[in-house]
Amino acid sequence: MKVAVTVSLKDGVLDPQGKAVEHALHNLGFANVTEVRVGKVISFDIEATDAAQARSQAGEMGRRLLANTVIERFDVQVQP
Amino acid sequence: MKVAVTVSLKDGVLDPQGKAVEHALHNLGFANVTEVRVGKVISFDIEATDAAQARSQAGEMGRRLLANTVIERFDVQVQP
Repeated sequence: MKVAVTVSLKDGVLDPQGKAVEHALHNLGFANVTEVRVGKVISFDIEATDAAQARSQAGEMGRRLLANTVIERFDVQVQP
Repeated sequence: MKVAVTVSLKDGVLDPQGKAVEHALHNLGFANVTEVRVGKVISFDIEATDAAQARSQAGEMGRRLLANTVIERFDVQVQP
């Protein structure tokens, strides 16, 4: 089963990497772009009996390792 | 319009960050996880007349700035 965990900074947390990308996009002429945020996506295969088990394990991985839940939130997508 | 550009290493390109996460997950007891890959997601707001224009501009951003297309591929999602 394929799982993708998307980790992004919580709203209100400064994102200097996003700001740098935003400036670079403006310099390239994409002036119509705002609110740039940069996050991570961790994708993997997991052996699980069903999607619910995969989702539950991925949630535990997010809390214990993949995200710093003080400043980041994460979202789990499971593809069978 | 909200756009998310997901950048990931092409298949066959070594992903040491993914390997490190995989080892850490195994050490935490998630032995059923394989093929861990770590990518980036760049999300932003864009002023565009329609989803097709947003998608086309995001594709140009991916090619020119967000992805190194020698070793990375990217995927554009547009949410109206």
